[in-house]
Amino acid sequence: MILQDYGNNVDKTKPLILITNDDGIDAPGIMILFNIMKEFGEVIIVAPDKQQSAVSSALTIQRPIKVFPKYLNNELIGYAVDGTPTDCVKIALFTLLDKKPDLIVSGINHGLNTSINVLYSGTVSGAIEGMLMGINSIAISHQSHNYDKNLDGAKFVLRKVVQEILSNKNIEKILLNINIPDIDPKEIKGIKVTKLSNSQWIDKFEKRLDPWGNTYYWFTGEYIINDNSEDCDDRAIENGYISITPLSINFTDYKNLNKLKHFENL
Amino acid sequence: MILQDYGNNVDKTKPLILITNDDGIDAPGIMILFNIMKEFGEVIIVAPDKQQSAVSSALTIQRPIKVFPKYLNNELIGYAVDGTPTDCVKIALFTLLDKKPDLIVSGINHGLNTSINVLYSGTVSGAIEGMLMGINSIAISHQSHNYDKNLDGAKFVLRKVVQEILSNKNIEKILLNINIPDIDPKEIKGIKVTKLSNSQWIDKFEKRLDPWGNTYYWFTGEYIINDNSEDCDDRAIENGYISITPLSINFTDYKNLNKLKHFENL
Repeated sequence: MILQDYGNNVDKTKPLILITNDDGIDAPGIMILFNIMKEFGEVIIVAPDKQQSAVSSALTIQRPIKVFPKYLNNELIGYAVDGTPTDCVKIALFTLLDKKPDLIVSGINHGLNTSINVLYSGTVSGAIEGMLMGINSIAISHQSHNYDKNLDGAKFVLRKVVQEILSNKNIEKILLNINIPDIDPKEIKGIKVTKLSNSQWIDKFEKRLDPWGNTYYWFTGEYIINDNSEDCDDRAIENGYISITPLSINFTDYKNLNKLKHFENL
Repeated sequence: MILQDYGNNVDKTKPLILITNDDGIDAPGIMILFNIMKEFGEVIIVAPDKQQSAVSSALTIQRPIKVFPKYLNNELIGYAVDGTPTDCVKIALFTLLDKKPDLIVSGINHGLNTSINVLYSGTVSGAIEGMLMGINSIAISHQSHNYDKNLDGAKFVLRKVVQEILSNKNIEKILLNINIPDIDPKEIKGIKVTKLSNSQWIDKFEKRLDPWGNTYYWFTGEYIINDNSEDCDDRAIENGYISITPLSINFTDYKNLNKLKHFENL
């Protein structure tokens, strides 16, 4: 199927699943994802070589990119890329793979990617890139930043959703943003299909002095959920559900298109 | 008005205009923008200290940010930030300015930001961030990558649009993406209010060897316009018009929301 030098131990009749993330190829979440996806097909990892949180859909165009083989127990399982999640998906599809994947999954991210976080998230951007290439794609994130958390909730929903996507031919060109609440997996109430919340960050920059007296700033912030609708992602998480939000990319503001028509005659 | 240490030579009765870009604070486009905006109010530049093309809405969260004063003829005109355009807008609004700007303008970018480029563009992302903060925002890009090009077309549309936005109280929370064709400004046919085109990049990675025999890749690509509608941005540019597209941020795929409701019962 796959990588130019991936060896011959691959079953070309099985679905091909590309996985990526933004926490970097050595983050625990991506290996959990790798092991679950192995139940469904041939899996290849193409992920950033280091932490790329909040890089959005950034592309590396000012410098070249390098690609490093990644082994597990002497078996090649994918590649580390010294770039962003978007770079990873692009270089996988246009260079590393010789077959279009049947599915792209990005994650499991450590930290939620609900609401406006979709704009900034590298995890979601990896999946956006897949969808733009016409491939069903999933971004999956867990509320906890703790690497030791029980991820059975994520495993549960991934098995259900991946099975459905790979077997239901009516599902095409979809992009799912899945978020898992940080509660005991046994307490999870179920799955909600949601819209993104109306939530926002109240940004703060913490000002500090370096040892030489120069000012520097750490970006922090407080997250506010301005949305009481039952069917939004942040409330689903708050209420103990796994949230699945279908996403699409359409930046044109059709509501204002006619309202601003007079700009043609200024 | 403005920066904590901006001096006292500012007229607080005038509109406050924040400008940024992604080509970096020393790019010629931002100084042209600065000079035009001075006709309309007090102007402050908060822009990346270096080239940040294609960084999308990336945020700097893995390391702290530094901020450096920028002078022109011994007068403080703004700050260079060692981060992205999104960082610049956030740190300007939450730390550097003590008053909310009346307008944010990002550019003038060297190179178009039409269609899907909106997803990757740092220039557009600077303006997106402004709009998300409730401030009317403009991204402006010129088709030419040549720094010596006559930018009279950009000056013309900026004067018209900024005048309208600052004087028409009905215009609020809008985000305009303006693109200027690379033709003699005298040949420009007018302004079109457009939707984003259905266009795409066919990505390519040019493979090279470094002096030590290691492979590296340069990201390149070919741009394809799959859209023949008269009212899309790429065709407006092709036909010799300045394109103005109103943008909004709404990632929820409402079309698939009901179609995927059965995921709740998997």
